[in-house]
Amino acid sequence: MTSREGPFALHPIGWVESTLTDRHLAPCQGDEGAPEACLVFGPEVSEGLRDLRPGDEVIVLTWLDRADRDVLAVHPRGDLARPLTGVFSTRSPDRPNPVGLHRVEIVSAEGTRFLVRSLEALDGTPIVDVKPVLDPHTER
Amino acid sequence: MTSREGPFALHPIGWVESTLTDRHLAPCQGDEGAPEACLVFGPEVSEGLRDLRPGDEVIVLTWLDRADRDVLAVHPRGDLARPLTGVFSTRSPDRPNPVGLHRVEIVSAEGTRFLVRSLEALDGTPIVDVKPVLDPHTER
Repeated sequence: MTSREGPFALHPIGWVESTLTDRHLAPCQGDEGAPEACLVFGPEVSEGLRDLRPGDEVIVLTWLDRADRDVLAVHPRGDLARPLTGVFSTRSPDRPNPVGLHRVEIVSAEGTRFLVRSLEALDGTPIVDVKPVLDPHTER
Repeated sequence: MTSREGPFALHPIGWVESTLTDRHLAPCQGDEGAPEACLVFGPEVSEGLRDLRPGDEVIVLTWLDRADRDVLAVHPRGDLARPLTGVFSTRSPDRPNPVGLHRVEIVSAEGTRFLVRSLEALDGTPIVDVKPVLDPHTER
């Protein structure tokens, strides 16, 4: 058994291709005008992808590689009029382990490339996991 | 800028305390009879926790340290009668990056210890992040 003290090594399974390249111009959440984007996976995980279909709603976990890991409190949505809030009560990318959580719908698939709707992640963002949505009404 | 090839180092921010110790006896999902459990955070992240309150529904991300990272297809829920399925279409803990996603309600808090309802993670599981549940029907 490995130590539970960590650190634990996340290995990207793919990367986001998107027209979004500037964190300060990206929407805060996918349903706030985010564009379609591509999830491009490495061939080594293709067996794990084989049951993903257009129309599926999935949760994509990413590594927000441009985040600041030393931040513990932020003004939500970058709005200085809102009080400083502990990061674990916000969706700020700045947090000790900047794992992004994105709910998206698969539009189409070609090999290990998946076009998805409404993803706010920046171009080049590493993907670390994909999971099915279990509760379509509440889990996001 | 760090390389987007990874690996990326996850550092635990806390650990689960639970009566669940055996993966094969744990429920597959939190709403399938999982017990109350404690999230015990390190003091170094206490500022990030300061706005979490009893009644809050949060998503807890864990590192499923007893998972098999080499698995790409499984029989869902361990049921051999179900066909082998790519792990990214399942919630199996066995997957390349075994990040657990758990939706729980905070029951009570004392310092950096939070009692939560219905968590299926095993005792000692490292916690890597906490995020609020976003509800598109209420203010963010």
